[in-house]
Amino acid sequence: MTARHSVYLDHSASTPTDPQVVEAMLPYFTDVYGNASASHQAGRKAERAIEQARETVARILNCQPSEIIFTSGGSESDNLAIKGAAWAARQQGRDHHLMTTPIEHEAVGRTIEQLASVMDFERTIVPVDGYGQVDVTEFERACQPNTCIASVMYASNEVGTVQPIHNITQVARDHNILLHTDAVQAGGQLPLDVQALGVDMLSLSAHKFYGPKGVGALYVRDGIELMPHQTGGSHENARRAGTSNTPLIVGLATALEMAYDNIDHYVTHYRAMRDLLIESVLERVPQAQLTGHPHDRLPSHASFIIEGIESTTLLMHLDMNGVAASSGSACKTGNPEPSDVLLAMGYDRQQALSGLRLTVGRYTTEADIEYAVSALARTVQKLSRLQTV
Amino acid sequence: MTARHSVYLDHSASTPTDPQVVEAMLPYFTDVYGNASASHQAGRKAERAIEQARETVARILNCQPSEIIFTSGGSESDNLAIKGAAWAARQQGRDHHLMTTPIEHEAVGRTIEQLASVMDFERTIVPVDGYGQVDVTEFERACQPNTCIASVMYASNEVGTVQPIHNITQVARDHNILLHTDAVQAGGQLPLDVQALGVDMLSLSAHKFYGPKGVGALYVRDGIELMPHQTGGSHENARRAGTSNTPLIVGLATALEMAYDNIDHYVTHYRAMRDLLIESVLERVPQAQLTGHPHDRLPSHASFIIEGIESTTLLMHLDMNGVAASSGSACKTGNPEPSDVLLAMGYDRQQALSGLRLTVGRYTTEADIEYAVSALARTVQKLSRLQTV
Repeated sequence: MTARHSVYLDHSASTPTDPQVVEAMLPYFTDVYGNASASHQAGRKAERAIEQARETVARILNCQPSEIIFTSGGSESDNLAIKGAAWAARQQGRDHHLMTTPIEHEAVGRTIEQLASVMDFERTIVPVDGYGQVDVTEFERACQPNTCIASVMYASNEVGTVQPIHNITQVARDHNILLHTDAVQAGGQLPLDVQALGVDMLSLSAHKFYGPKGVGALYVRDGIELMPHQTGGSHENARRAGTSNTPLIVGLATALEMAYDNIDHYVTHYRAMRDLLIESVLERVPQAQLTGHPHDRLPSHASFIIEGIESTTLLMHLDMNGVAASSGSACKTGNPEPSDVLLAMGYDRQQALSGLRLTVGRYTTEADIEYAVSALARTVQKLSRLQTV
Repeated sequence: MTARHSVYLDHSASTPTDPQVVEAMLPYFTDVYGNASASHQAGRKAERAIEQARETVARILNCQPSEIIFTSGGSESDNLAIKGAAWAARQQGRDHHLMTTPIEHEAVGRTIEQLASVMDFERTIVPVDGYGQVDVTEFERACQPNTCIASVMYASNEVGTVQPIHNITQVARDHNILLHTDAVQAGGQLPLDVQALGVDMLSLSAHKFYGPKGVGALYVRDGIELMPHQTGGSHENARRAGTSNTPLIVGLATALEMAYDNIDHYVTHYRAMRDLLIESVLERVPQAQLTGHPHDRLPSHASFIIEGIESTTLLMHLDMNGVAASSGSACKTGNPEPSDVLLAMGYDRQQALSGLRLTVGRYTTEADIEYAVSALARTVQKLSRLQTV
């Protein structure tokens, strides 16, 4: 069965690469193909493009170009930040206690889990409230004299909640703890000024803001020591081995620049679409309740629990109606377990199996919202009837 | 100063992406942009493209699709193979001794160094002969009852020498040691049939065979346990976290297929150009001697020591004449230290500062060779004269 309409409401999972970004990348596949580490003209041309991209990213993040490391994506940025800083701390005979939250993306959560379970680090998971927000007092209570890194995400991929990062970084600084934030979902939507945020490390992924998949950036405040996670050649100032990916790095910078040059325009549109979506769903689907913070949330992000309806079934039916949605994280799809994030927020097991995430994008229209909400309302009604028969 | 002619002889550092490969990737940036882990149509279309790419790679490597892991490049493949298998062995309370050679790419060499110096693994570096070839008897002597992994590169990036991989794998198998090979330089030039080679793990990087930068593959024989190196989501059968890079994975498979569908054609051309290059250089540059094996070498690869002339100076002058060459490895450029590879092969410090690598490609012509060798001969003559004044 093929649906007549097709509405993509899974922009938190991935966005299309903007055609202008593709245009910007093209010459670096076929013409400027030299290895940026090579000492000849072909290499230097590639190197110049990469350094220009680094300056663009640094300008938007309000930092030095030398504080930007290009990676293969958000997951690698998170791995490098956390493992890199943790191993550097260990090598210096320093601290070995890590802090994080229960609502992190798995690239943070499982990385800290691996460090704890296999590599003899200690960790504390700071609880969140019913909106998925970290309590700053709880965070401060968890700080130990031997804590080296805390990782707290900027905005939740699953429930959209934005954390009080600035307040958290102040506490971290008071306790001499490095603060890393996974800003993968925030990219293209929230301010990324690292001085204003006060963070020490910040992860980005291009394909969340209309750039290509397979490229990310990590901001690392000057002076912070990282042990390379991907070892080998001395690329990226000896902090990340692997031939520099000229086209995709150019793509990331182009996409980031486009997003932040027009941030007000895009965010206004996201907010309008999201608010219409939330309002319509709550009005027309009685089983729906909003998850995450009602105000402190990503402009593009709506998330719900649909009481009594399991996500896997609901998503299948929505898909048959041409609506692309998610239960919360594409990275966990196929997992029939209840959402750890929703459980941590205090929902019960049945509710944590009923998450629905709808995320709007640049080209989402009111008609798309109308179509998607109608399909959702119809589907939920049908599924509820089936279950009560 | 801009040279009138431009001859690119640094294909071992990077190749241009073939325009057909770019064409094959394009739809996956802008149209089929869904996250391949998502459960909707947009995601499934991306997933299908990736699984088709996996089948293509598996067919060329003569293995199962499930034995292929897509990565962000050769360096990540090497890191995942070695660290993944080493940590898995440790977690099972098994062996912790690693073996390698002194001529590996740094993605192998430094990875094993990190495991040894920071993570408490042991290592043995098996010596090579004057051609850079591993002596199989020496290799067998280094095998210990507690050796878990040996990593021996298929063909050298620096001196082009091809290792007797098949003989090495037989010894490794007799001693119950996993054998990983870095086949990054071999890709597109040597047979990659993993059954015939007998290897347990094999690394590839697309941009060495006219595919895009930033994507690689790792073959892992069925049944081998790897601890994920990049932790997070359960992508790539829970062995490599990070949103699957649909366009670049399609690009890798397309490039690999093009290379191996026409392997005889390309290799015949590479050999002819390389042989002409070696012959001409040895004839017209009296200070030149061939490094690496005279016969067991990569079809595209010529490498020399230019007695008395330092690489950095020579490369600068060649570049001013429009000839893109390398001292041995783009990943080490800017490093004023003598080549560890040449030192391990028995050359002295001065010789190890005088390496020159010239690597031909699909579009290299006899006229290119003539131009490059003339420029080289002229430059060497000039520099020799300057030094003797």
